Amino acid sequence: MKAIVKKIGQKGVFVKDTDFIENLGVTIRTLYTGVCGTDREIANDALPFIRAENGNELIIGHEAIGIVEDPGDSDQFKKGDLVVPMVRRPGKCQLCKIGHQDYCIDGDFVEAGIRGKNGFMREKFRDDEKFLLKVKDKEIQEIGVLTEPTKNVMKIMETFKFLSSRVPWYCGDSTFSCKNLYIYGTGSEALLISFVFSTLGFNIFLVNRHPVSDKIQSIINGIGASFLDSSSEDYENKLSRNRPDVIIDAVGSSEILRKSVEKINNNGIIILFGTSGQLMEKNEDITGYIVDKNISIAGSVDGSKENYREAIEFISSNKNRFPFKDLISGIGSPENIDKIAKKDKDEIKYIIKW
Amino acid sequence: MKAIVKKIGQKGVFVKDTDFIENLGVTIRTLYTGVCGTDREIANDALPFIRAENGNELIIGHEAIGIVEDPGDSDQFKKGDLVVPMVRRPGKCQLCKIGHQDYCIDGDFVEAGIRGKNGFMREKFRDDEKFLLKVKDKEIQEIGVLTEPTKNVMKIMETFKFLSSRVPWYCGDSTFSCKNLYIYGTGSEALLISFVFSTLGFNIFLVNRHPVSDKIQSIINGIGASFLDSSSEDYENKLSRNRPDVIIDAVGSSEILRKSVEKINNNGIIILFGTSGQLMEKNEDITGYIVDKNISIAGSVDGSKENYREAIEFISSNKNRFPFKDLISGIGSPENIDKIAKKDKDEIKYIIKW
Amino acid sequence: MKAIVKKIGQKGVFVKDTDFIENLGVTIRTLYTGVCGTDREIANDALPFIRAENGNELIIGHEAIGIVEDPGDSDQFKKGDLVVPMVRRPGKCQLCKIGHQDYCIDGDFVEAGIRGKNGFMREKFRDDEKFLLKVKDKEIQEIGVLTEPTKNVMKIMETFKFLSSRVPWYCGDSTFSCKNLYIYGTGSEALLISFVFSTLGFNIFLVNRHPVSDKIQSIINGIGASFLDSSSEDYENKLSRNRPDVIIDAVGSSEILRKSVEKINNNGIIILFGTSGQLMEKNEDITGYIVDKNISIAGSVDGSKENYREAIEFISSNKNRFPFKDLISGIGSPENIDKIAKKDKDEIKYIIKW
Amino acid sequence: MKAIVKKIGQKGVFVKDTDFIENLGVTIRTLYTGVCGTDREIANDALPFIRAENGNELIIGHEAIGIVEDPGDSDQFKKGDLVVPMVRRPGKCQLCKIGHQDYCIDGDFVEAGIRGKNGFMREKFRDDEKFLLKVKDKEIQEIGVLTEPTKNVMKIMETFKFLSSRVPWYCGDSTFSCKNLYIYGTGSEALLISFVFSTLGFNIFLVNRHPVSDKIQSIINGIGASFLDSSSEDYENKLSRNRPDVIIDAVGSSEILRKSVEKINNNGIIILFGTSGQLMEKNEDITGYIVDKNISIAGSVDGSKENYREAIEFISSNKNRFPFKDLISGIGSPENIDKIAKKDKDEIKYIIKW
Repeated sequence: MKAIVKKIGQKGVFVKDTDFIENLGVTIRTLYTGVCGTDREIANDALPFIRAENGNELIIGHEAIGIVEDPGDSDQFKKGDLVVPMVRRPGKCQLCKIGHQDYCIDGDFVEAGIRGKNGFMREKFRDDEKFLLKVKDKEIQEIGVLTEPTKNVMKIMETFKFLSSRVPWYCGDSTFSCKNLYIYGTGSEALLISFVFSTLGFNIFLVNRHPVSDKIQSIINGIGASFLDSSSEDYENKLSRNRPDVIIDAVGSSEILRKSVEKINNNGIIILFGTSGQLMEKNEDITGYIVDKNISIAGSVDGSKENYREAIEFISSNKNRFPFKDLISGIGSPENIDKIAKKDKDEIKYIIKW
Repeated sequence: MKAIVKKIGQKGVFVKDTDFIENLGVTIRTLYTGVCGTDREIANDALPFIRAENGNELIIGHEAIGIVEDPGDSDQFKKGDLVVPMVRRPGKCQLCKIGHQDYCIDGDFVEAGIRGKNGFMREKFRDDEKFLLKVKDKEIQEIGVLTEPTKNVMKIMETFKFLSSRVPWYCGDSTFSCKNLYIYGTGSEALLISFVFSTLGFNIFLVNRHPVSDKIQSIINGIGASFLDSSSEDYENKLSRNRPDVIIDAVGSSEILRKSVEKINNNGIIILFGTSGQLMEKNEDITGYIVDKNISIAGSVDGSKENYREAIEFISSNKNRFPFKDLISGIGSPENIDKIAKKDKDEIKYIIKW
Repeated sequence: MKAIVKKIGQKGVFVKDTDFIENLGVTIRTLYTGVCGTDREIANDALPFIRAENGNELIIGHEAIGIVEDPGDSDQFKKGDLVVPMVRRPGKCQLCKIGHQDYCIDGDFVEAGIRGKNGFMREKFRDDEKFLLKVKDKEIQEIGVLTEPTKNVMKIMETFKFLSSRVPWYCGDSTFSCKNLYIYGTGSEALLISFVFSTLGFNIFLVNRHPVSDKIQSIINGIGASFLDSSSEDYENKLSRNRPDVIIDAVGSSEILRKSVEKINNNGIIILFGTSGQLMEKNEDITGYIVDKNISIAGSVDGSKENYREAIEFISSNKNRFPFKDLISGIGSPENIDKIAKKDKDEIKYIIKW
Repeated sequence: MKAIVKKIGQKGVFVKDTDFIENLGVTIRTLYTGVCGTDREIANDALPFIRAENGNELIIGHEAIGIVEDPGDSDQFKKGDLVVPMVRRPGKCQLCKIGHQDYCIDGDFVEAGIRGKNGFMREKFRDDEKFLLKVKDKEIQEIGVLTEPTKNVMKIMETFKFLSSRVPWYCGDSTFSCKNLYIYGTGSEALLISFVFSTLGFNIFLVNRHPVSDKIQSIINGIGASFLDSSSEDYENKLSRNRPDVIIDAVGSSEILRKSVEKINNNGIIILFGTSGQLMEKNEDITGYIVDKNISIAGSVDGSKENYREAIEFISSNKNRFPFKDLISGIGSPENIDKIAKKDKDEIKYIIKW
């Protein structure tokens, strides 16, 4: 069967005919796999920590939805069930033992399609039932492929709930209606963040360093949020009129961290999710702001099985309310291998139909 | 009566004969006032946000212990009571209303001896009983002047307890005996941090960019902690052998923030307290580390009345266990005005006896 | 205009022609009001703490949805907006000041339709905009009347999230899929609890001391929960096979509290919401269980404005998923005054259309 | 060597000459063992869950302090170290795995001297180093025997800190100076609770159903607390003038739970520690109070290794401040076997010197 494979140390990725490696578990026919920045980095030979499961080849792909073909010994699953597989698998540390490999202490985990375990960009795969989540709502077969990026948002939410409990930080009427949330980035992850956090009642601003496409602008408008172009002249003014209370960074630049702490209100919360890593332009010190404003900052990576479950719940309950479908800007076939390496103009999320 | 006064916009500070400004409240005879970095900045015309209470003069001094001379209408205090006054006084925001001006939302507070309210470097002062804390233990009359800097440590502790509840982060036996705490700085505030956190059972390392005096080395040894000179050759090795789990910065440099996130263990905690503000040497990006390691960072400024109370409790309970007296490296008279502006070689904490 | 009125100290309730009492605020035309146990107690002269707003008459009714007829000075609302009014209005205590009159310290609050403030069982009412919540989704005009009872569930959820953070209490895979939730009661409040908590992935059991109607049984089945009749012979067996981890009581009997602590698993959580107050049958002591099992118990009353907002969010997002409409078992006219005092056989929720 | 032994199913306890059972680990010479209610129940054949380690005999005793005679393979301990052994040893559940056997989920643990493991009432014992805590302060050799009961207080404190974070519950100045803490009981455990909680700044009341000895009254006075005799005429008046905010029950009666919830202030906290189990006198329902007042209740049993460590810290730091020595009302020899079964008049804590 077809699989998309990375040969470690060799350029690009390619389609290859493969056999099952796994002997046991639930057999799943892949329906869709999403392509994200990590896949793109693999295809462009830019992910240093990539690791094969055995030998020197890795089947890539970590965002997937599939259908059970053969439940094997599983009591939980039956033929025809819609399922989403988990990416990260636990190691032996204390947090892995309690289901929190997303907070793994020693880094001794594997990640399907990324490090040490074959991924889901193949026609079929087998998996241990404990790393599969059932999707009861058959209507989200296509947008269900967004579960994996949405589970990251659920962990970001968990991190926000945690940090926001430091002090009674909400508005005087117990809501967040007076609070401004800035999301840095306007890609699929940033838009998913805006969907989820709009259910908390914030005033939401999405920020990028360039104008966005009409489609993205319309998605942002549709949820009652605003877009700010940080390269525009009146950006600083707008920022000063609506100072951030919460900042979620889906971009990954220290520059943003620096600017954030300058403008954020006292007791402000900053959650860092992006990792694209850009250089800081200036040498300014930011620790003074962090101290004087009692700012709380947290990195948030991956998510637990509970976060996957919440993501499925969220997509299912809100399938008619948020334009998940609009996030999927393109659907291609596995053979269209160039689409993995190169982002289309105006692409939001590209997925592969198997 | 004598007071140490700053004329706003004029160089230095000077001793001046003054009258009471306050008509009501508890009358207190000042015993000791501590001199800290902020006082030094005032004396060196380097504190931009200094503000007089009325007119253009401010009596400085915010670390004090005194003795009640006349309780006025107060039921809580009587003549002869030992008291410590609070620095920051609440504004009108939601957090000020619940006793947490240390988390003031809008910045609309005053701070005795710093902004908008006369301080305690004078022979006597009058104060509202609600901003005074009783010191029951008469034996800590001198080291009680360390209450104000110690209340900052109590808020740092509160911040640590909060951040450490993000995940079950402790060692497998429920203690912190396997965890390394790095404190950046070796001044009086850093040493007070080391005293307080040594009661939690961490392995403690104090770090500075130069060797420390024998006296400071002996204080560090005395509490079972280690000193690391970050300019020494084997520093990186030592750091790698004992990677930090918690970092508390009492220095205030982004450089430290950057290095910290590189070396800290997963789920690491960083608390920023120092605000001296040094430039970063390099342009390296740190957000990737913060994300991938689920790092939590929080600024911590000032402290609540409860933190003052805890500070008094801590000093009193541990007066024979920790060398608080050794932190007071010099005691001078109010007239010795030069000592406020200039730090002595090997000074840890200089205090004024009134 | 018509209103349903209680004359304090006089039997029953009656329809009366009234004028506006309030001069200012948003004018709202009432669409629906729900009838709950408290209204029933008022109609049956069994609510001791009832209190008129002025004089000796009280317009009753605290569950309502209406439509803005005249926004007055309000910037937030415009003619035609669908709104839900809040029941409890803040007093002067510390928690009221931060929007948490649901945790009022001194009891110095008013409750519309219950104590000290006229309610919503009238054709129109005027209200301060800060106690109104906008319902953006026009499709939930009828089931939106369930917002008020659902906001209680949102506070129960908040209470559960709090208590469940005492220890890493979740299953080994980070979810609640291995945990049993028992809900005592099968009325509208209990069913709303089952809807909300079913989104957390628990195994849910609803319990009552008698069989339930086919309609209720079908609602329970529809959300994948089970019904247990505690008067049936095999109840104890079932309980022992699926010991509770969380118990939410919507009934209000100490008997249930006693049985709960006997059977609940270690680190179990009990949330008490019901207040109907039945006598205990036996004199058995329960504190031993609470101690040895580290049980956490919390009462939960009312809810904050944020809980109302969450309730509207929940009903709107899940209107096609949960059978809210089935909970409304009868709709009558204001004149049908007997329906307030007496519960119909098989009634779940009776509402009045204005 | 001498040991105090219970033959399961046989009356009383007796002194017996025994050999080591354990081959490995640190060898400790017992200095003191405390006698508590559990030992007394064993001696009076009233502890149903007693279990031998092997065969049908159990060496009793779970409160101990000893001195290392032979460290065996241990790196942490050396000859002459003062140590306190832990009572409960972990099973295989999720919480046991992270060092929290005090919250064991499945009950699959052993407790030295109580169930499934020989205790410390013998001249020497051997133990795994991971269940031993070092006592650095040699001055607390005798009062260090109070570590085990004090670790229970540390868990009670942990439980209080948790429950008190439900809402901003503290006084308007951030402290607990306006809050009343009631401790039910006046035995050694209740007095230790009063010592620890007096460091939080509460107004403390200890309650019992009869007057207390002069010695106990003087201990209570010494820490600035008050004693209330609940059988006295003016008790109800006093209670109404100083309504509880926090109640800690060291007695174990549902009667107290019932009275507590009636009189406690809104958002009140109740921690149950006592397990002596008395019958309720009346059939009154209490759930209404728990609901309407948002009361939080938690059972608290045993404690983690961290709680033992905190207990040692507390005793050492406060040895001159609190009259720990006065709690030890009698010291006897192992042979004096009757003292285990029967409490002396005016006994607070009886310990055995080995």
